[in-house]
Amino acid sequence: MAKKVLIVYAHQSVASFNAAAKNVAVEVLSTKGCTVEVSDLYAMKFQASATVEDITGDVKDTENFRYAEETKLAWEEGKLSADITEEQRKVNEADLIIFQFPMYWSTVPAIMKGWFDRVLTLGFAYSQDKMYSNGMFKGKKVMLSFTTGCHESMFTENGISGDINVTLWPLQNGILYYCGFQVLAPQIFWAPSLISSEERKAMLEAWRTRLQGLLEEEPLGFTPLDCFDE
Amino acid sequence: MAKKVLIVYAHQSVASFNAAAKNVAVEVLSTKGCTVEVSDLYAMKFQASATVEDITGDVKDTENFRYAEETKLAWEEGKLSADITEEQRKVNEADLIIFQFPMYWSTVPAIMKGWFDRVLTLGFAYSQDKMYSNGMFKGKKVMLSFTTGCHESMFTENGISGDINVTLWPLQNGILYYCGFQVLAPQIFWAPSLISSEERKAMLEAWRTRLQGLLEEEPLGFTPLDCFDE
Ligand SMILES: Cc1cc2nc3c(=O)[nH]c(=O)nc-3n(C[C@H](O)[C@H](O)[C@H](O)COP(=O)(O)OP(=O)(O)OC[C@H]3O[C@@H](n4cnc5c(N)ncnc54)[C@H](O)[C@@H]3O)c2cc1C
Ligand SMILES: Cc1cc2nc3c(=O)[nH]c(=O)nc-3n(C[C@H](O)[C@H](O)[C@H](O)COP(=O)(O)OP(=O)(O)OC[C@H]3O[C@@H](n4cnc5c(N)ncnc54)[C@H](O)[C@@H]3O)c2cc1C
Ligand SMILES: [Zn+2]
Ligand SMILES: [Zn+2]
Repeated sequence: MAKKVLIVYAHQSVASFNAAAKNVAVEVLSTKGCTVEVSDLYAMKFQASATVEDITGDVKDTENFRYAEETKLAWEEGKLSADITEEQRKVNEADLIIFQFPMYWSTVPAIMKGWFDRVLTLGFAYSQDKMYSNGMFKGKKVMLSFTTGCHESMFTENGISGDINVTLWPLQNGILYYCGFQVLAPQIFWAPSLISSEERKAMLEAWRTRLQGLLEEEPLGFTPLDCFDE
Repeated sequence: MAKKVLIVYAHQSVASFNAAAKNVAVEVLSTKGCTVEVSDLYAMKFQASATVEDITGDVKDTENFRYAEETKLAWEEGKLSADITEEQRKVNEADLIIFQFPMYWSTVPAIMKGWFDRVLTLGFAYSQDKMYSNGMFKGKKVMLSFTTGCHESMFTENGISGDINVTLWPLQNGILYYCGFQVLAPQIFWAPSLISSEERKAMLEAWRTRLQGLLEEEPLGFTPLDCFDE
């Protein structure tokens, strides 16, 4: 069956290494027969901040505006802003979502954090009884693909920044697995600006090879919800 | 000596629990003789996304716009946008910075992530040889003060979300300690919307008490830079 892929992409420049990584993914996955959509956040001037303007029409509690509760109501009533609704459609249709970004302060750039905050709303992406292994998106795969400015050596267990898996835990467990997604191993392009042009080309070739079998990869293991009391 | 405090605050509503926590901090610290400034990010409509507009005038490389390098140059030449320059002035003057926010997806809301991305620029906040224990802001203290939606029990070592210290590692180590700040223990208000009004009042009283001695608190320990090869 033909698969649908969404690439949520955050870089300001079409000549960047991130752009190259995104383009390789579009090319390989399209060639394999996938339908690929790209949300190019900077080009879309994607709004990052969660505000009352994300709800069209009146909000329920104007005195104490509570974002999660108000967007849940708005989602139920089809009153979320057009840009959020459009991203939610893309998520619904996707079998696989790839987040492509340069690491900014140990996590995603603010514009992509805004995508998480605004698109993954209560009701749509999770609820009291739909989370983790029982999460809303358990039929979908997801992965982080990112570049860094520093070398891999800074991100080992004894490195100054600690194990990269610790740094990625809030993203991979706290957001993606929380919503039920099957999280594939991250694709990490270490310090593309500190290496030679040949090494960069080799990194992109390795990515090209991985993309060939990406849809068949097994997800990372997280502890299933049933192991916990609450 | 009278201390200067900056509170970077991110909540949409003046009636929120976050607003109450911020107001208590302003009140107690002012009474103690501190000068307190507040950056109310939503009220300021603070721009979250890192774009070419953060540099006034021409950029050096228009073909491949590289945010860190371009903002470093702009900072050296006094060409950063007015909003960034103003926040950098506040940081320079502050002895203590408190970040007050509701936890959004295991970290700060996008608007506050945008503050980190855009204000803590290369050259101003860190450089090749100024980071961690040798960091730019080693004379300043900083702390996270935040609310959650879920109970503390989800954030224990065996809880489904893992130890809260793991979740906070990218923020406290990857951003704050990276820039040299002395990081005070976080102030965590667990699930204010799930408890009684009396319990909320008690939480704010405990905060009031802590604030009395905050400036004398010892920072958290992180491994000093000299223990690592690179
Ligand atoms: C606010 C901020 C916070 C940051 N925080 C962190 C952090 O916490 N940790 C960290 O490690 N880093 C951090 N960085 C650094 C950042 O992660 C890197 O600058 C970024 O990942 C580099 O990716 P890029 O796509 O921008 O590289 P680019 O600079 O665009 O590309 C690198 C090189 O690849 C070349 N290239 C482009 N296309 C191709 C191609 N097709 N084939 C071969 N070569 C090509 C480019 O010409 C360039 O020479 C931060 C940067 C900023 C701005
Ligand atoms: C996009 C998004 C992502 C989220 N991700 C997470 C997550 O990863 N983990 C998590 O745990 N939670 C998460 N949440 C939930 C969020 O952290 C909580 O909703 C938030 O922390 C609650 O704080 P608040 O200030 O908004 O509370 P409010 O709802 O404003 O306040 C709670 C109660 O306190 C009352 N109050 C206000 N002032 C006072 C006062 N002076 N004295 C006594 N009572 C007062 C209010 O009236 C209200 O009844 C997320 C929410 C959103 C929108
Ligand atoms: Zn190195
Ligand atoms: Zn509970």
